[in-house]
Amino acid sequence: MAEKIAKQSQDFNKWYQDVVVQTELADYAPVKGCMVIRPYGYALWESIQGELDARIKETGAQNAYFPMFIPQSFLQREAEHVEGFAPELAVVTHGGGKKLEEPLIVRPTSETIINEMFSKWIRSYRDLPLLINQWANIVRWEKRTRLFIRTTEFLWQEGHTCHATREEANEKAMQMLEIYRQFAEDWLAIPAVTGRKSETEKFAGADATFAIEGLMGDGKALQMGTSHSLGQNFSKAFGTQFLDADGQLQNVWQTSWGMTTRLIGAVIMVHGDEKGLRLPPTIAPIQTVIVPIWKTDREKAQVIQLADSVFAELKSAGIRVKMDDRDQFTPGFKYNEWEMKGVPLRLEIGPRDVADNAVMAARRDIKGKEKVSVQGIAETVKTVLDSIQKTLFEQALAFREANTRDASTMEEMAQLILKERGFVRVWWEGDADAEAKVKEDTKATLRCFPLDQQDEEGICVATGKKTKSRALFAVAY
Amino acid sequence: MAEKIAKQSQDFNKWYQDVVVQTELADYAPVKGCMVIRPYGYALWESIQGELDARIKETGAQNAYFPMFIPQSFLQREAEHVEGFAPELAVVTHGGGKKLEEPLIVRPTSETIINEMFSKWIRSYRDLPLLINQWANIVRWEKRTRLFIRTTEFLWQEGHTCHATREEANEKAMQMLEIYRQFAEDWLAIPAVTGRKSETEKFAGADATFAIEGLMGDGKALQMGTSHSLGQNFSKAFGTQFLDADGQLQNVWQTSWGMTTRLIGAVIMVHGDEKGLRLPPTIAPIQTVIVPIWKTDREKAQVIQLADSVFAELKSAGIRVKMDDRDQFTPGFKYNEWEMKGVPLRLEIGPRDVADNAVMAARRDIKGKEKVSVQGIAETVKTVLDSIQKTLFEQALAFREANTRDASTMEEMAQLILKERGFVRVWWEGDADAEAKVKEDTKATLRCFPLDQQDEEGICVATGKKTKSRALFAVAY
Repeated sequence: MAEKIAKQSQDFNKWYQDVVVQTELADYAPVKGCMVIRPYGYALWESIQGELDARIKETGAQNAYFPMFIPQSFLQREAEHVEGFAPELAVVTHGGGKKLEEPLIVRPTSETIINEMFSKWIRSYRDLPLLINQWANIVRWEKRTRLFIRTTEFLWQEGHTCHATREEANEKAMQMLEIYRQFAEDWLAIPAVTGRKSETEKFAGADATFAIEGLMGDGKALQMGTSHSLGQNFSKAFGTQFLDADGQLQNVWQTSWGMTTRLIGAVIMVHGDEKGLRLPPTIAPIQTVIVPIWKTDREKAQVIQLADSVFAELKSAGIRVKMDDRDQFTPGFKYNEWEMKGVPLRLEIGPRDVADNAVMAARRDIKGKEKVSVQGIAETVKTVLDSIQKTLFEQALAFREANTRDASTMEEMAQLILKERGFVRVWWEGDADAEAKVKEDTKATLRCFPLDQQDEEGICVATGKKTKSRALFAVAY
Repeated sequence: MAEKIAKQSQDFNKWYQDVVVQTELADYAPVKGCMVIRPYGYALWESIQGELDARIKETGAQNAYFPMFIPQSFLQREAEHVEGFAPELAVVTHGGGKKLEEPLIVRPTSETIINEMFSKWIRSYRDLPLLINQWANIVRWEKRTRLFIRTTEFLWQEGHTCHATREEANEKAMQMLEIYRQFAEDWLAIPAVTGRKSETEKFAGADATFAIEGLMGDGKALQMGTSHSLGQNFSKAFGTQFLDADGQLQNVWQTSWGMTTRLIGAVIMVHGDEKGLRLPPTIAPIQTVIVPIWKTDREKAQVIQLADSVFAELKSAGIRVKMDDRDQFTPGFKYNEWEMKGVPLRLEIGPRDVADNAVMAARRDIKGKEKVSVQGIAETVKTVLDSIQKTLFEQALAFREANTRDASTMEEMAQLILKERGFVRVWWEGDADAEAKVKEDTKATLRCFPLDQQDEEGICVATGKKTKSRALFAVAY
């Protein structure tokens, strides 16, 4: 904790790494590209898991678990899928001291092995829709890694559903996208744009990919979750069929959708500031820290007595509260530490506060301190935590809006991206080559065609033709 | 569901496989030795996870996540460890399209990689004790597999702790063993013997291994959880050291402990009967099923109205209740299905019950039905569920006691094992060769030296010498 974190405004990347490592969210693993998620970081994942799992179950999906090893031949059955994932695979060639007859792939995603099972389980339309979710570890061999954001092994949930019709599958893909947006916004306090991916950016094997995109504190975009409409691509490759009500054999229509430990990186990069983390109260492992302050033993006895009673009251009200009564550190040291660790609210209790039956409350989201009565402290803290949650979202939303700019030519778009970063919104019906050109010039990619498009028209910056389609470009993680 | 399960009394193995597959707990995976955990089975795992996680956290441990890939060289640092696990390893040799410089092992357990991290994190005695738990998937290349009981990939939790003294580590190992015993007994309704493993049977790399052992319905034993006192074996191999209060550098003393998806197999084999599963109410995904019965439409309307109100009352009381109002199946078919699936309590509601404002209650643990008033139904059901939980435990305990026998000679032990199965208790201070001899003759292994030994003495069946040490032998899964 004694070390310093780099200045966010000067070196965002270094700041990010410093924050992750020094707040003990995660650490570099001895295996290249892998990470160790430490207890403080894993607690964030547990909070994400708990809430997201409940929301997924509310849609009717059930959890299951499929093997992590996939026969190599399975991946080859869907042509686009294997092409997309081949460069990223980890391969098990030996097991139990022997060379395997067929190498096994460590799952980069589970559409293939899940379809193999679906094809055995599904018989008739009565078995549909089939809605399955899995919490699992995933391996994609990444060249350039970054803790939480892109690691060789990561944790995620992956939903896989089967439907009788294309329409129903499309509806499910959109429903889960909306679940993801709501989760990002009201649980992580991160505003999320929902949109469709271009052909260049879509999932290998999908008919269409939808995503939620966030804007990080350095103006770069982050894909925070995806929902794919898979059509019948995998069901044809694996023979996942059902007898419809008329007795006809048909291929099922499918979706898949996932969110990962990357969300923790998003929380850090959206809310963090020069002092370190700022955690939304919903997911903060410690929502409120109490720092008692004293000089004499007599003061200590009084201060600790009040601090203990505040602690007990907050705890019994269900607030995740921590008492920091360590002897060996000064209050100032403690303030810095808990600010760096992103604790939303700090309550300082000194001798003068004992006399006033009050505490000093310091919010992590805004500057300053406020004197607060001990009377009704649990209700007060709850209200303040709600307000912090709201403020963090509003600050992030204001930042995104200030950093979403319109461009009407390719040159203007390039200039805005290079100079300002952020999202640049353009009329767009360009092809893959046009996207590649933008990427070459600016490193920006087409993040998505936002779903909330009005019925408007403009001139495509790539083709010069009239179009109703708007796209967001940004440099992305 | 239309298929039949084998008779338990005639072919226990086939019965087990039939029950697992036909109740849709799990399915065979396309990869040899792996399993797919289906929603009904995964719900059991979620219940186990939820409760065990809470109990582990109460001991002060925090969850974290370590990479699943371990450099091959790590395993070689602890001589016994690598010798024990070498035959069971899965090896990744290629990643991202290239041959790896050093092969990676898919974790068979995580002592090595966790110690590598511990050695970076621990500086002084102030960092101790360090109490970490991980929920993860594990791979051990098994030759003979069995759904849930022994699969190439399985799910588990593994705790890893560091302490300043040997005594403290030993205490922790015993504490976790006791947590496991309590969990098995009051959550899974499975009586568990706690004991120490022999040198032959201990964990590769441990100073001592403790385990809880259960007795399955066919008289075979199952190791249900282990807790290891690791001494300084791994801390020496990985340099996991701390500065003590006197400024001296010392190696930490460690424990590790784990429970796995095997517990689901134990639940099936301890409680199951000819009709299929019998699930303890604590973990049953469906605790109570309501089967409305009618012939005419008029009856249906009345019956469904009562069934709905009972359903609503049970649900709002927090009971996991299911309404089975499917039109296409007869009540008898439904009874069989839910009995096979192990639902602890069935409520049948027919026209006569409507007149009486009552329901027929059929418990899964004992024969017969009982008429129960709708008045106060939620409280009645809760009481009955508690009673079922207790009965299942008592039945299992009675079975174990009836199948734990004393032998005073090697011959007697061999005869009892071959003829009766079950636990055979003997005075024992034999060596590894003597254990091997028993195994050769009877397939039985030394399950454990039970911890609850009295201060008694007897004649060791192997050496003929006086000893205070008693052991349980059994044929085990």
